Amino acid sequence: MKEIYLDNSATTQPVPEVREAMMRALDAEYGNPSSLHRKGVEAEQLVREAAENIAQTLKVDPKEIVFTSGGTESNNLALTGTMLAGHRTGRNLITTQIEHASISATAQFLEQQGYEITRLGTDQQGRVDPEELVRAIRPDTVLVSVMMVNNEIGTIEPVEQIGALIKEKNPNTLFHVDAVQAYGKLIIRPRRMKIDLLSVSGHKIHGPKGSGFLYVRRGVKIQPVLWGGGQQGGLRSGTENVPGITGLGTAAKLISQNLDEKVDRLYEVREQLVRGLRSMEGVTVNGPEGRECAPHIVSASFAGIRSEVLLHSLEAEGICVSSGSACSSNGQRHPSATLTAIHLAPALRDSTIRFSLSFFTTAEEIDETLQTLEKIVPELRRYTRR
Amino acid sequence: MKEIYLDNSATTQPVPEVREAMMRALDAEYGNPSSLHRKGVEAEQLVREAAENIAQTLKVDPKEIVFTSGGTESNNLALTGTMLAGHRTGRNLITTQIEHASISATAQFLEQQGYEITRLGTDQQGRVDPEELVRAIRPDTVLVSVMMVNNEIGTIEPVEQIGALIKEKNPNTLFHVDAVQAYGKLIIRPRRMKIDLLSVSGHKIHGPKGSGFLYVRRGVKIQPVLWGGGQQGGLRSGTENVPGITGLGTAAKLISQNLDEKVDRLYEVREQLVRGLRSMEGVTVNGPEGRECAPHIVSASFAGIRSEVLLHSLEAEGICVSSGSACSSNGQRHPSATLTAIHLAPALRDSTIRFSLSFFTTAEEIDETLQTLEKIVPELRRYTRR
Repeated sequence: MKEIYLDNSATTQPVPEVREAMMRALDAEYGNPSSLHRKGVEAEQLVREAAENIAQTLKVDPKEIVFTSGGTESNNLALTGTMLAGHRTGRNLITTQIEHASISATAQFLEQQGYEITRLGTDQQGRVDPEELVRAIRPDTVLVSVMMVNNEIGTIEPVEQIGALIKEKNPNTLFHVDAVQAYGKLIIRPRRMKIDLLSVSGHKIHGPKGSGFLYVRRGVKIQPVLWGGGQQGGLRSGTENVPGITGLGTAAKLISQNLDEKVDRLYEVREQLVRGLRSMEGVTVNGPEGRECAPHIVSASFAGIRSEVLLHSLEAEGICVSSGSACSSNGQRHPSATLTAIHLAPALRDSTIRFSLSFFTTAEEIDETLQTLEKIVPELRRYTRR
Repeated sequence: MKEIYLDNSATTQPVPEVREAMMRALDAEYGNPSSLHRKGVEAEQLVREAAENIAQTLKVDPKEIVFTSGGTESNNLALTGTMLAGHRTGRNLITTQIEHASISATAQFLEQQGYEITRLGTDQQGRVDPEELVRAIRPDTVLVSVMMVNNEIGTIEPVEQIGALIKEKNPNTLFHVDAVQAYGKLIIRPRRMKIDLLSVSGHKIHGPKGSGFLYVRRGVKIQPVLWGGGQQGGLRSGTENVPGITGLGTAAKLISQNLDEKVDRLYEVREQLVRGLRSMEGVTVNGPEGRECAPHIVSASFAGIRSEVLLHSLEAEGICVSSGSACSSNGQRHPSATLTAIHLAPALRDSTIRFSLSFFTTAEEIDETLQTLEKIVPELRRYTRR
């Protein structure tokens, strides 16, 4: 049976080069980077190479890369690490209402510990207002955390503008960007954008699950979340996941090659999908238009059809999509914070599907997906209770 | 050049079956376990199978297995998770002076947060006195954490006796066992041993780095360390590291097959090494004798030779060993807490080498190692300043 995988914001398939790099680290170069003998040195070298590959994509120093177990740990480390390290200067954290659960749940945990959380709303396209954000900054604001690309509707947030405004208002306030959905799709320059901390996940860029990193600008005060042997400059203890790290480094290097070209092509494929969806009756595309949206995410609401029903009907035709975000655990049914924040009509929130593309998605796959939708959507509507 | 790898307590080489299982999860079955479509269901199935394989080795329920990024995270989750969840009942944590850094550094962090830490000493073989431990238990003791096998000298702690005594004295006190060096070498039965939480690392049992688990007995109150999408029953957020988890499950299943037989053979190889070392002048073997020591660890002190010098001389002959424990970061030179606790003469602490074997270590490799030592140790002594 054919398979059209349009759930790349949930996870991507590791490319062959990633798998090969990992195999080397699992087989011949299996040492512990902390060991002093040559097996250790070999492994340490793989970690260093990965840091160099990643640093190059961001134009930062390899020493500013802290490897983690993924986006969730990176986000936890960024928030908890800076708030705990900064608790003498202040207790305020500013974030938004449309963040990924690994930000919003961590913020809630910090709130229970006595920190004060400011949660900014967005406009109907999911955009944070930089001016509103700046007004919210207080003398005791330790950190501002804003995602670069929203994982549900693809909105690109004005992080460069936000970064500049933060530093103008309060140079002591740190700026964290959750770039899990942005890295490998948009050009990110932490120095120019005044980003102090940046979270990335490996398995969203055709790298392995269980890998990720946090960029931590040199000089940023941050406390570990995991304590132990003091690996990675004391910021993240635990034997380095060498296979995962080398897979991540390989994926980072590959995804950033010919990025402009790949992104242009992806926007064309995305537009093809958006045009097709818009031509269908009772279908709304959510989020901003064109280049104000990420090239790989399309959120669409199908009036009168429950998203899970549509998801499983598409699955039966070999097409994998997501209802909202797949990043929270199975079986949990929360109303989507993002769809609520953009004031999507309540009736449509449960009728929303996310299509997420990769650089490997073809025009033919989009054609076939649209044809399938044109066939099954009217059928499903016929069975819907009014 | 030949290679004799005797640093298996630092890390082990993943076996081919582990690598193959991981490849499947990286290639065909790459879905996100939280996705509702079939690619997600496939991945979820791999995670479930791994939990079942592991649960079987401990005779526990698969739902009691929480996957982590490794031993360090497991130990952090066990300590911080139970102390934070139990802060209303008490603030005391009892542990020992010979724990791995991921326990001792986490305990220190908790101490800074206002928790009270009791650190028990050991006898000259590194054994904790169960009676002393019981006397230390207070009405407000939330948790006792004792390692099952010491990572530097191999001492097996009397965890079964300790478990029974804890529950007799204070049924509300939880018992955590760091089994990173024990799992896959000793039979562990959490229910019989009254163990509430148990930490295991994948890369010590020929599984992948970046994998591990925490056994959490059903009903134990514990709070997450990483917040987010609520995966794994809310105890450990973040997209599951499916390749790592499936590699870990495979390694757990394999290592527990014919365990008695493999351990008997390993004890023979270990005895061969111990006998050889004891026959050498100026060499002391640390830790307990025979079956009171783990089958894979031999700690030996070489009077008058700095451990790093001996390590690199052995390395030049293709033999990889460790000076003390390799689990803390390169370049950090702390006096070993374990060697201090067992009152090893200060002059010998810096002259101590750890040989750590695996089930794949052969009698021939031990012979060759002993011959090499007999050649180089007198040479090195000749150059030592008196």
